[in-house]
This record gives sequence, C-alpha cells and structure tokens, in this order.
Amino acid sequence: MPDLLFSCSDDEHAAFAPPILEACRERGLDIRAARVALNPAAVDYIVFTPDGPVSDFAPFTGLKAALSLWAGVERIVGNPSLTAPLCRMVDPGLTAGMVEYVTGHVLRYHLGLDAVLAAQDGEWRPGLAPPLADHRTIGILGLGALGAAAGGALAALGFRVVGWSRRPKQVEGLECLSGEAGLIEVLMRAGILVTLLPATPETENLLDVTRLAVLQRGARIINPGRGSLIDEAALLAALDSGQVAHATLDVFRTEPLPPGHPFWAHPNVTVTPHIAAATRPGSAAQVIAENIRRGEAGEPFLHRVDRGAGY
Amino acid sequence: MPDLLFSCSDDEHAAFAPPILEACRERGLDIRAARVALNPAAVDYIVFTPDGPVSDFAPFTGLKAALSLWAGVERIVGNPSLTAPLCRMVDPGLTAGMVEYVTGHVLRYHLGLDAVLAAQDGEWRPGLAPPLADHRTIGILGLGALGAAAGGALAALGFRVVGWSRRPKQVEGLECLSGEAGLIEVLMRAGILVTLLPATPETENLLDVTRLAVLQRGARIINPGRGSLIDEAALLAALDSGQVAHATLDVFRTEPLPPGHPFWAHPNVTVTPHIAAATRPGSAAQVIAENIRRGEAGEPFLHRVDRGAGY
Repeated sequence: MPDLLFSCSDDEHAAFAPPILEACRERGLDIRAARVALNPAAVDYIVFTPDGPVSDFAPFTGLKAALSLWAGVERIVGNPSLTAPLCRMVDPGLTAGMVEYVTGHVLRYHLGLDAVLAAQDGEWRPGLAPPLADHRTIGILGLGALGAAAGGALAALGFRVVGWSRRPKQVEGLECLSGEAGLIEVLMRAGILVTLLPATPETENLLDVTRLAVLQRGARIINPGRGSLIDEAALLAALDSGQVAHATLDVFRTEPLPPGHPFWAHPNVTVTPHIAAATRPGSAAQVIAENIRRGEAGEPFLHRVDRGAGY
Repeated sequence: MPDLLFSCSDDEHAAFAPPILEACRERGLDIRAARVALNPAAVDYIVFTPDGPVSDFAPFTGLKAALSLWAGVERIVGNPSLTAPLCRMVDPGLTAGMVEYVTGHVLRYHLGLDAVLAAQDGEWRPGLAPPLADHRTIGILGLGALGAAAGGALAALGFRVVGWSRRPKQVEGLECLSGEAGLIEVLMRAGILVTLLPATPETENLLDVTRLAVLQRGARIINPGRGSLIDEAALLAALDSGQVAHATLDVFRTEPLPPGHPFWAHPNVTVTPHIAAATRPGSAAQVIAENIRRGEAGEPFLHRVDRGAGY
C-alpha cells in the first residue's frame, strides 16, 4: 500500500485530494494518503506545490517520485534535497485553457477588438476591417505541450505560425526554428509574439533590450508563460517608444502584481491576473494517478523533469 | 468570345475587374468585358452587385448567368426580370474572414475580455479565470458555408457546438438540429448564439420577442449574418431586462447604422461596421471565372441560388 503525502495549500488539498484518490482507486491502487508525514522514510510519493510546507526532501529517504501539481517547476528544480524523480503537471485541461487564452488574445489583436470596442460613438468606420489571418505571422517562443497546442490552433485558423525552441524540435503543421539565429528570425517575422517558455536561467530576460529591438516596429506581445522571460524595464521602454505597440501579460516576477507597478497604468499594457491556464483537478488527478501506477509497476514516469535543462 | 457586363460600383469594378479578367485568361477564356451594354441581347454574363445600375434584366435576352459578387442575394432573388441562373458568391476568403470574426467574438465573450480590459485598476482579480470551452455551448443558426465553417472552428477549440438549419443538414463534427422544435432547443441550450442565416421572408425577425424569451437568461448574441434576422425593438427590450446580456452586431436593416440608433449608445451592444466578412477580390475572381468556364462548357454552375428558398 503506497504512502502518499500531500504538501500544498489547504485550498489545493481540498480541490485535488478527492479526485486524485478516486483516480487511484479507478486504477486499483490502494493508497494511504496524509498531509503530515509521521514517518517520512515511509513516504512513497509527494504530491506538491511550492505553496505547501515541504521544502527539505532529505527525510523522505524512500521517495519514489515528487509529483508537481503545477506545470512550472522552477521553484523546486534546483532544490538539492530532492533526488527522487520529479514530474511536472501536463494537464489536458491546463493545455485547453492556455490554447483558449492565446487564441482569444491573438484574435483580439488580429481583429483590432480594442479599437472596435472604443468605436461605439455613432461613426461608421468600415476601415476597421482586418486583413485575413494568412497575412499575419504569429511567433511562438517555446514548443512544449502548451506552445505546440497553441501554435496548432492558430495555424488551424489560418495564421502563419513560426515556432521556436532552444533545441531543435518538430511540431506537425508548424514551421519550427531553433537556436540563437532561429530566435532572431522569429522575432523579425512575428507581428504577434507569444512567449510560452519555462523559467530557467537560460530564459531569464530572454526578451531584453537587444531582442525587443529586433521585433518589427509595432509588434504585439502576449506572455502567458513566465514573468522572468521579459526584462520589464526594457519592455516598458519599448512600449513608450512604440517599438512594441501593445503587450498582454498574465505572469509577473511578483504576483499579485503590486498595485503601483507601471504595467497597470500603461495604456498599451493589458494585465491579466495569472488566469491563462489553471490546473483542473479532474484531469490533473488522472495524470497524478497514472504516474503512481507507473511508479508501482516500475514503468517510466510521464512528464519527468530533466534536471539539467530545468523543465 | 463571351460578353461580360460589370454592373457594380466604381470601387467594386476597380477592385474586381482586373483579377476576374486575369482569372479568365488563366482558364483560357477570351472575354470581352464592358461596363455599359451597347447590345444587351449579346451579353452572356453579368457580374453584379446591388450597387450597380442594372435592375431590369429583361433586355439581356441571351444571358447565361448573373454572377453576384456578394454572398447575400436578397436584393436580387425576387427580381422577376431575372430568369437566367443566379449564382451567389461563396468566397474562401470571405469564409475565412467570417470564421475569424465569429471565433474572435465568441472567445471575447468566453474569456470575458471586456471585463479583463476594464480591470486595469491595480486590483488583482484571479476570479476572472473563465471555465473551459467544453463547458460552453455555442448555438449556430444557419449551416451554410459560413455557419458550417465557423461551427467547425469553434468545435476544434473545444466548444460544444449545436447548429441549426431550417431543413435537415449534417455537418461533420457538429450536432445539427432543424425545424421549429430544433430551433427552440438550440435557443434553450446556447450560452452564445451566432446568427448566420440568409435574409429571406422566412428568416425575417427570426429572433423576435417570443424566441428571445426562450434563451437562457444572460445569453449573448453575435449577428454577422443579416440585420433582418433580429427584431430590433425586441432585442433592445431583452438587453434592457438582462434576458440578453450582450449583443455584438455587424449587420443592420439600414447601413451605415444611423448615428442616433439606440444600438450605438447601448452599454451592452457592440456595433461593428459590416466588417465580419468582406469578399476578397483575388479569391472571388477565381469563383467568377470558374463559373464562366462552366457556363461555356455546359457544366452546372457553382453556388447557384435556389429561387424558391431564396438563397
């Protein structure tokens, strides 16, 4: 009977524990679950978020895996006390939500919806008609589960989509570039740029003064990935100069974004409160239970983190 | 050598005549084109819009077909002087534009973008996170080329889509209902209703007081179809009572919509100036040229209007 420890917030425990235990039962797994480990050495799996109490994994000497409820693992991946396999959450519900957010905001920019909503003054302006999507190039930085799905949805709507990943990767239906030269090419071509990279030392301030200057003048940026991907001061300067026409930002270095932060007041920034993609308990529970089943059966884990790469 | 008469506005002639003649040349058709018919009996094809001078087709005794540059033919279909085959425009560019408009405004409602854009005051509101698309039912009234394509794009994004047409019709990937009972069912189930029916005597005021009352309280309406589909007074009353939460309207009984019309000032109406889908000269020219080729070869025309049905 595997021992499972939940280390997350009270709200997360209330939302996730029941469907996870149910999904384990459906797989014939008889689980003993707790929120406090009386005997850490006996714990087989920890289901965790950085909002839970466990930060020192050393006492969990028999740990088979640490299973994250969050897609982003930057706050755990560098923890030297965690030596057991670490698995990220790749939740189909989270992916669906991200695709909806990205597609919605890309179409908002493409159709000029902000201008349409502002043009309710009685003047008929047929010039608001947009070009077709096949005249618009969308750059997607990051071709993981989220970037690949968002890029595919945009391509299905007719947009020209060019994706980028640090290491070469192929995603069906998308033009995929990689490496530093590929990054510069994507930045030069994208009218709308979507950033869906993980937070790693290599992606810290990926969009800095130099790279923002490579964009087409008047490009738009959508960042539902990680706040650390963008140099905030450089972005604000690019917005002020018109080099970047508009930015829609869902993630920030400090969350909640402080009330006095200049992003809130900037006329060309839309702040969304980290709502692009939330893990959904029902579908996430299936991923956790499946990984426990795999661990018990000695099969390889799903979505195991490459500690060297950081994601 | 077939004789072609253009009967449309100057702007339309300037935009469409060159690509149409080019597309005819590509098909090996040697065309003699004019804007004024010196000998009406010799005209083989009229490429027209209601903005052109021809309204009496009786003198065109040798006419092989009247080829509309517009998708909507309600201003010509009842003209008793036109006895030759009448063909509508079904332009792939127009369809693409309509899919983009419908998908963009459905996602705008789904993601609550108007509220997001209004919430830039420094307060972090994680409650703005929307449900997933598979919790949202979209009703599509009209399953012609435009309705079918828009419904398919929404279904691909994960929305529950239920389509309706007067006569039974099947569209792959969509639940399709028909008849009066089917209409009531779609109205009852749709959280967001998209109207893409043609303007005919049967669809005049389709959404009237009675049918608007069948909608879920707080439903949203997107009308990129025809202004005549909606009883304007009934819609304004439903908006005032909250029965309909919001309407996005692209087409009107009078266009341009007069500056004093109550739609402009209503806080829960977005007016767009008939921009959902414009015929694109390049792709439309291919449709016209193909129909001329078919006429010369004695093959059946594309998109021929059923005069009894009105579309």
